[in-house]
Amino acid sequence: MSSPKQIALGLSMRYLGYHAAAWRHPLANPDAASRFDHYRYLAQTAEAAKLDMVFLADGIGLRTKDEPAGALRRSHQTLELEPLTLLSALAAVTSRIGLVATASTTYNEPFHIARKWASLDHLSRGRAGWNIVTSWSDAEARNFNRDKHMDYDERYERATEFVEVVKGLWDSWEEDAPLFDKASGIFFDQSKLHWLNHEGKHFKVQGPLTIKRTPQGRPILVQAGAAEQGLEIAARSADVVYAAPHDLGSAQVYYANLKGRLAKYGRERDSLKIMPGVTLFVGRTRAEAQEKYDLLNALVEPELGLSYLYAQMGDLSAYPLDGPVPEPTNPMVRSLAKGLLAMSRRDNLTIRQLYSTIAAGFGGRVLIGTPKDIVDDMQAWVEGDAADGFNLCPPVLPLALDEFIELVLPELRARGMFRTEYAGPTLRENLGLVPPRNRYAG
Amino acid sequence: MSSPKQIALGLSMRYLGYHAAAWRHPLANPDAASRFDHYRYLAQTAEAAKLDMVFLADGIGLRTKDEPAGALRRSHQTLELEPLTLLSALAAVTSRIGLVATASTTYNEPFHIARKWASLDHLSRGRAGWNIVTSWSDAEARNFNRDKHMDYDERYERATEFVEVVKGLWDSWEEDAPLFDKASGIFFDQSKLHWLNHEGKHFKVQGPLTIKRTPQGRPILVQAGAAEQGLEIAARSADVVYAAPHDLGSAQVYYANLKGRLAKYGRERDSLKIMPGVTLFVGRTRAEAQEKYDLLNALVEPELGLSYLYAQMGDLSAYPLDGPVPEPTNPMVRSLAKGLLAMSRRDNLTIRQLYSTIAAGFGGRVLIGTPKDIVDDMQAWVEGDAADGFNLCPPVLPLALDEFIELVLPELRARGMFRTEYAGPTLRENLGLVPPRNRYAG
Repeated sequence: MSSPKQIALGLSMRYLGYHAAAWRHPLANPDAASRFDHYRYLAQTAEAAKLDMVFLADGIGLRTKDEPAGALRRSHQTLELEPLTLLSALAAVTSRIGLVATASTTYNEPFHIARKWASLDHLSRGRAGWNIVTSWSDAEARNFNRDKHMDYDERYERATEFVEVVKGLWDSWEEDAPLFDKASGIFFDQSKLHWLNHEGKHFKVQGPLTIKRTPQGRPILVQAGAAEQGLEIAARSADVVYAAPHDLGSAQVYYANLKGRLAKYGRERDSLKIMPGVTLFVGRTRAEAQEKYDLLNALVEPELGLSYLYAQMGDLSAYPLDGPVPEPTNPMVRSLAKGLLAMSRRDNLTIRQLYSTIAAGFGGRVLIGTPKDIVDDMQAWVEGDAADGFNLCPPVLPLALDEFIELVLPELRARGMFRTEYAGPTLRENLGLVPPRNRYAG
Repeated sequence: MSSPKQIALGLSMRYLGYHAAAWRHPLANPDAASRFDHYRYLAQTAEAAKLDMVFLADGIGLRTKDEPAGALRRSHQTLELEPLTLLSALAAVTSRIGLVATASTTYNEPFHIARKWASLDHLSRGRAGWNIVTSWSDAEARNFNRDKHMDYDERYERATEFVEVVKGLWDSWEEDAPLFDKASGIFFDQSKLHWLNHEGKHFKVQGPLTIKRTPQGRPILVQAGAAEQGLEIAARSADVVYAAPHDLGSAQVYYANLKGRLAKYGRERDSLKIMPGVTLFVGRTRAEAQEKYDLLNALVEPELGLSYLYAQMGDLSAYPLDGPVPEPTNPMVRSLAKGLLAMSRRDNLTIRQLYSTIAAGFGGRVLIGTPKDIVDDMQAWVEGDAADGFNLCPPVLPLALDEFIELVLPELRARGMFRTEYAGPTLRENLGLVPPRNRYAG
């Protein structure tokens, strides 16, 4: 028998965890998402467990709406810290774990992003990652001088050019440009410093960066890679993709599709890691796991729970919570509601059960079971070419991280699926990725 | 005799120090400005000495030009880290010292700045400061889709509105908005969360921030406050001003002018601290101090030294370095060169002496002397209403910081001019400033 495929593991740390009622858990500190010591505990704990990276998703505004009225004040998706500053602080109190922060190409300038992430890569000695997003909400547009968000095609066209500019700026200084020759007084070799002089449709950027080439060559690039243009950006440039399919079949199709696009950019299949998100409820028995799930779901007040259905299905507060999900009468709502309706019909869900399914992992994939159940599932995905690893989105933090380490990690290691030591000091080395060549290097 | 006025002290940490040849000093590590451990040493050392703040000036591009050709490769003003990420990392390894980073209002959006500095204020538990600048170089414009920098009036008009938007966003959450009431499931009091809905000439920003009110109420605002519009922004909003006058008389005029503007904004004279920059060469004897100055100046190669005169006087490389500074023939150059020419005539300086004067402290004020000389000068400025403190711009780092602490600080303390313990955990408390009221608070 050949040795099993090694998986990559990331920890998503946003808010107080991915369950809508995380902050009400008896063991949760509801103020934790505003406290550095909370994140320091998470990052240091994840590092002690040898996870590849911690990750912060992001939106640049309050996306949660007060729909139905009264829901917003119940949501903990309202208070947090800012990812780049937070991960920079964490760089100083960790030494091996990767630090991946999100930034939008729609509401930033490439020079800032190239410079800040290069700096983070130096501060962390080679552990920075940039999760490239294009943003989608009007709430964000309205914080940046617009009334509505940019349309899809324009966002992705801008994103594609943005990423190329950032990569170009990261090549400003060749590795051996600094000379530091005190005797002659020559600080650097000017023939190895490069002005980008980019002039494109969306950006005009001269360069160079005033930051030398970074420990990883360049930070790790991460993408969600959901839609067509996102898949192309990912295939061209991403090192890691946080994919979202919920079932094995769709995940296999997605995996084959994305990996199949790499060749045309001259890339190996293994040069991109696909790490779907997953929210785990784990117990020593299935009953214990289910209890954990039920405990949190009982803490989702209907006012909040209905808000998770509002955008697709409108206001359902007039219907009995424990009755069937109604067919919307408005045809526009009907089209948005298609996915949720199909799910509720397939699994015969009540309104309460439907919103609980979503509230349990902010709409992501949820697994409930014993360590064996969960690792069986992970192994099936990895061996079935559906995933190279997983982005853990724990329901409550730090509790569910501690449980993962106590219960699931030993099972993963018993099967030889996860490391017991880091391969090296950089995120790139731990992901098994090759350093990029500087475009100007001879 | 009344007790002496207490001074505020900041440490400017940019590059390897403020001397053009800092990196060539026998004790300097020329790679230090790219290394986190260097800055950690500086911040922790400054904190052990109870300094108020560390500070990073900034430009978003390579401002240094290769004029005359061959100069650029000799300049250490070419490699650094990015201030916000660096100070965020330092927040994690310090506990009392203020952390002041520069950001431009010309090439940023107010929502990003408000959010990132609010986050830094939480990460540091109340030690963040924002140095507000408008940027002035074409090098920066060309990194942000422009050919030339914005004109003066437009930059300052934008800056004024920018600062008001940022202050507005910092009031998004009233202090007591979070409730965290697990029993009722109410996370926060929605009547205490505020949308800014700003619509001005330069910005349209809805808000709110997703970061709760910060430990300092809001971060400390710092300004250079040089020109007329800068003085007004400072008088309206700044807590600290890094002023630049070189002689006592001009500094007193500046001090009276700026402090005199506070009343019309309903502010007390003491609510704004004026901290001029100064580069110190200190020795146990005057001869020793002069030796330190001469040692570094001897390391400024003419190619680099002449670059400090180039922008105002053109290329002087055809003239003898140890001869008089020539009168420019081109009338446009003559007008730019006026200040430098007057200085060279007044002090009877050669070309080499003129560029050395500038190269010693990147054009800022330079003092050379014994601890007694230096503290006499500081005391005269403070008692003569020319300064409330000083922003130290050491010629070589960390060397000149260590010397300041060993030689100058004991003399300041012997005269009762500087603290031996911090007043509190926040920068605001250490500067003796009152917390701002939230505009919405009842």
